Amino acid sequence: MAQKETSALILAAGKGIRMKSDMPKVLHMVCGAPMLGYVLETARACSLNPIRVVVGYGHARVQKEFAGKKIDWIRQKEQLGTGHAVMTAAAKYQGFTGEVLVLPGDVPLLTAETVNLLLRAHRRAKADCTILTAELNDPAGYGRIIRDGRGAVSAIVEHKDATKAQLKIKEINSGIMVFRGASLFGIIRELKSDNAQGEYYLTDVVTLLKRRRKKVAAFTVEDGREVLGINSRAQLAEVGRIMRMRIIERFMEEGVTIVDPENTYIERDVEIGRDTVILPYTVINAGVRVGRGCEVGPFTHLRVGTVMEDGAEVGNFTEVKKGLIGRNTKAKHLSYLGDVKIGADANIGAGTIVANYDGRKKHLTVIGRGAFVGSGSVLVAPVKVGKNAVTGAGAVVTRAHDVPDGGVVVGVPARPLKKKKTEKKKKKRR
Amino acid sequence: MAQKETSALILAAGKGIRMKSDMPKVLHMVCGAPMLGYVLETARACSLNPIRVVVGYGHARVQKEFAGKKIDWIRQKEQLGTGHAVMTAAAKYQGFTGEVLVLPGDVPLLTAETVNLLLRAHRRAKADCTILTAELNDPAGYGRIIRDGRGAVSAIVEHKDATKAQLKIKEINSGIMVFRGASLFGIIRELKSDNAQGEYYLTDVVTLLKRRRKKVAAFTVEDGREVLGINSRAQLAEVGRIMRMRIIERFMEEGVTIVDPENTYIERDVEIGRDTVILPYTVINAGVRVGRGCEVGPFTHLRVGTVMEDGAEVGNFTEVKKGLIGRNTKAKHLSYLGDVKIGADANIGAGTIVANYDGRKKHLTVIGRGAFVGSGSVLVAPVKVGKNAVTGAGAVVTRAHDVPDGGVVVGVPARPLKKKKTEKKKKKRR
Amino acid sequence: MAQKETSALILAAGKGIRMKSDMPKVLHMVCGAPMLGYVLETARACSLNPIRVVVGYGHARVQKEFAGKKIDWIRQKEQLGTGHAVMTAAAKYQGFTGEVLVLPGDVPLLTAETVNLLLRAHRRAKADCTILTAELNDPAGYGRIIRDGRGAVSAIVEHKDATKAQLKIKEINSGIMVFRGASLFGIIRELKSDNAQGEYYLTDVVTLLKRRRKKVAAFTVEDGREVLGINSRAQLAEVGRIMRMRIIERFMEEGVTIVDPENTYIERDVEIGRDTVILPYTVINAGVRVGRGCEVGPFTHLRVGTVMEDGAEVGNFTEVKKGLIGRNTKAKHLSYLGDVKIGADANIGAGTIVANYDGRKKHLTVIGRGAFVGSGSVLVAPVKVGKNAVTGAGAVVTRAHDVPDGGVVVGVPARPLKKKKTEKKKKKRR
Repeated sequence: MAQKETSALILAAGKGIRMKSDMPKVLHMVCGAPMLGYVLETARACSLNPIRVVVGYGHARVQKEFAGKKIDWIRQKEQLGTGHAVMTAAAKYQGFTGEVLVLPGDVPLLTAETVNLLLRAHRRAKADCTILTAELNDPAGYGRIIRDGRGAVSAIVEHKDATKAQLKIKEINSGIMVFRGASLFGIIRELKSDNAQGEYYLTDVVTLLKRRRKKVAAFTVEDGREVLGINSRAQLAEVGRIMRMRIIERFMEEGVTIVDPENTYIERDVEIGRDTVILPYTVINAGVRVGRGCEVGPFTHLRVGTVMEDGAEVGNFTEVKKGLIGRNTKAKHLSYLGDVKIGADANIGAGTIVANYDGRKKHLTVIGRGAFVGSGSVLVAPVKVGKNAVTGAGAVVTRAHDVPDGGVVVGVPARPLKKKKTEKKKKKRR
Repeated sequence: MAQKETSALILAAGKGIRMKSDMPKVLHMVCGAPMLGYVLETARACSLNPIRVVVGYGHARVQKEFAGKKIDWIRQKEQLGTGHAVMTAAAKYQGFTGEVLVLPGDVPLLTAETVNLLLRAHRRAKADCTILTAELNDPAGYGRIIRDGRGAVSAIVEHKDATKAQLKIKEINSGIMVFRGASLFGIIRELKSDNAQGEYYLTDVVTLLKRRRKKVAAFTVEDGREVLGINSRAQLAEVGRIMRMRIIERFMEEGVTIVDPENTYIERDVEIGRDTVILPYTVINAGVRVGRGCEVGPFTHLRVGTVMEDGAEVGNFTEVKKGLIGRNTKAKHLSYLGDVKIGADANIGAGTIVANYDGRKKHLTVIGRGAFVGSGSVLVAPVKVGKNAVTGAGAVVTRAHDVPDGGVVVGVPARPLKKKKTEKKKKKRR
Repeated sequence: MAQKETSALILAAGKGIRMKSDMPKVLHMVCGAPMLGYVLETARACSLNPIRVVVGYGHARVQKEFAGKKIDWIRQKEQLGTGHAVMTAAAKYQGFTGEVLVLPGDVPLLTAETVNLLLRAHRRAKADCTILTAELNDPAGYGRIIRDGRGAVSAIVEHKDATKAQLKIKEINSGIMVFRGASLFGIIRELKSDNAQGEYYLTDVVTLLKRRRKKVAAFTVEDGREVLGINSRAQLAEVGRIMRMRIIERFMEEGVTIVDPENTYIERDVEIGRDTVILPYTVINAGVRVGRGCEVGPFTHLRVGTVMEDGAEVGNFTEVKKGLIGRNTKAKHLSYLGDVKIGADANIGAGTIVANYDGRKKHLTVIGRGAFVGSGSVLVAPVKVGKNAVTGAGAVVTRAHDVPDGGVVVGVPARPLKKKKTEKKKKKRR
């Protein structure tokens, strides 16, 4: 399979009127990434090349979001429909002899597996165009796939133009199509915009191809939810829900206990080790790594850059941002741990704040193995608490006042505990 | 349409035995208001007048809850059924020539739109009584609507009295009915209580009217969930869920991102601006106003009287009560902000407590534009932190010890940072 | 009914490969107890005796978890199927003349009521074996119950061996069976393992019994969900969800308001009084007792050993562990209350930490009736705050520095407020 010759042409120019947003539609977030990011990732996973993205509304913002990625951007100044978007890209494909996979930028649930199956079906059928279709229980609003007696596609009929019999067809056009490049660009200029919207529709290419006796095939996706597009905030939420459940089901298969899947929010690009338990009301953002046998939650927010080593426990109104939580270390009550490296077997008391931000920039705090951070402590970064060191309840360890290994500090600001007191205390303890 | 002559007669006397509550049923809360409040609001929105409410169990408590509202209260000393409640009200309607809309007090999902459609249908049909009906998939337990060959209502048959054929009827009586006043009160005294419960049923009026060859019509609500009554805590929860989804869907249509609708609790009477993002596990109470482009959540509770200006961000275990959060101000970690006015561009550090309550009453705290409240600070109201002022980590700013504009305070209790130290610090920073 | 002669034989030897866990399957938690615990509890509730449990994988861990319970453990060294497990137990039943109820250890939803109905049906039918069956909408994967013309069970056909007609049968084998002991053990040695898995299947006993013209009956459970087994983390989550809803529905029936049942996590063995309101995002662990008219949540975690007296309120990022919250006492903001006894009418300020752990063990804190704990206070156990005593905002009450009744302490560490100041303050207040 000559996948080198298959280009992805991603349509991402629309504003998404129904989103009622100032942000370009494809930048809206799904489980920790803009929806366009998923489509790009799928294109890369299928080794599609080149990847071209047609942008229009908010193009600068879209390009900036994906700066540094290998993308050939195409600017569509006016948004005159999907057909027009492909026309705008045509110049880039002069002399191109491969396939073109046209993808909407708003289908984050589409998997690489499905794209590969579509491409394989296209090649086997030696088709000029293969449409990815889906069987929907409620096909209302979608273009229906009309097949002839032998199962070949004869037309796509828009919902509003469909007869009563056609309305009963449950196979719909996903808007995802692969073309023999020469067939597509040999015909794209013939599209007309003489319709109610005054737009050029890519689906009309099917009619033009059929008229020239070109072969149009169809491949039906197994799970119709993969081709769900996002045109409103409600659909954004629905697609997000499906994506989350997909993520959570994968973790459960791999041996993670998710106590209440409906009340657990885990984004993409997260790793969680076997026999870790995720308690309800937990939010884990993209990029977090959780080891084996950990406990997370309830009421916990693990943010970007956080790593929990095996056996670590974080819970009960605790937020960690760029924190390394060492092996078997516990931070289980009302704590904010920002930009911190904590060694193994440490105990972070209730109400601990690691203050990483001084109003201008963020600094690192280091807490040694076996340290005991007393309840209500505030550690002001940059600062270091040594191995097996102790901070008293309510201590405010100020910037650069490092606590040595085994040291004990108390008070506001925190200062070393005087020897006498320590001894007295020890006696008392006996 | 002579809407001035349409009175609302709301039945709110029952205890609601199945609620197993000491509180009158109609005072149980749905999305931030007692259920009766919704029915009253709908009556007012339809310009019904006078609004009469029949109270019985816990009447004093009900009347107190709605003190100051223009309501004509009617006391039903014994609760002998819906028919008896209307009988009790009859004296008030002497000489009344308009229409009477009888509404149960436990149908908070009923919309003004539906009531207006019912009234219009009633008037067009020139009926003596028009019943609001609903088509239910599972009509078990409800009275069925029997229609004759021409579609006119001939009777309401209670579930237990229905034949097998009648049990298959899915159109049910919602208990909401509009009457020509003269027809209703001309006949109400003829009701009998010779049934198993020993109660007077309003539905029996239909039979009496039919017997006198009066016209009984029916109007079917589009969404049967609108007429759901609340007789148990399970139904209270279910109606609450539907109300919440109604609220959330409206926000999504208006351009608010609700990342996880099933994990977002927003009450009635809330405003949220376009392109604001509501993250999971957020509770927003009635009366809160959130601007455009804000971020709320996760794990956030915005309580009554809170206003977030455009671009403000509140999250991660933060509660705000009667707080003004200025434009672009951030309060994102473990904070309690009670009775506070915060200017624009301020930063509220992790673990900040604005202590508004001195054990007797609550006081106001003011935080100026651009202020930097250090992590773990406690501000004891009444107190003022000036513009661009700074509080050190762990500072306890005591009552009336205001921090001047640009000032820096540290310690417990917080006192101005001495000059020397400040200078030394500045050098260090360089 | 000679229930004394009915033994429970619980099969708990399997590892549960699909769980992908290092922990024996039956120890995975459902709503606050290991799943085997529920099965044992049901056996005890039905007065089954003796209770024998066949263990294999991780047997030491399983036995340790239930140490002290009256259980006769049987070790199955190799796990060669359910039939083999029963064979392993056979020696223990020499001379036993009663009934044997064979129960899988992974069916926590099974109720004592259903077991009792099964036993009654078995005795009435004078059967040698009675199978508990269920009617499932989707019976795929389960063994189907084949009944003859008179409704008697003629065979159990495994899914993979079933004919097309048999696949349409919706009645399935739950794996729960009661036997006349003599019938079971008289035949168990005849089981063969000449099947694809090389295992001994208990269901083959049915065929053997039928061959000898013994009577095999079936009893169908009303709610098929009761016999759901747990073989994967997804099933663990699903069974947990059903159990939670069962718990929550019971509370609603008893007069507790659960505002959002889908966002409330309550484990087994919890008591909640009438007219208490549970707000969303609340976690209540096994063993907690909540009185009448309380308010819990939102964002609240009540842990083991917590008792809330009538009218108490806990909410907004507050965690209580082994805490007694006195009548009408409020702890409503960002607090950690560990190992504490709080009297009536106290007010626990926002951000209060009761630090119970000194790095080695946990200590008790006592807070008197009517005390006012100021915002951001840290109380270091063991310590006592007297009746009507006050701690200032940000006070750190250190170990053993008890605050007398009516006393006022401030600062870090907290010391009594000097008289002058107190007087001055009082004047000011006037």
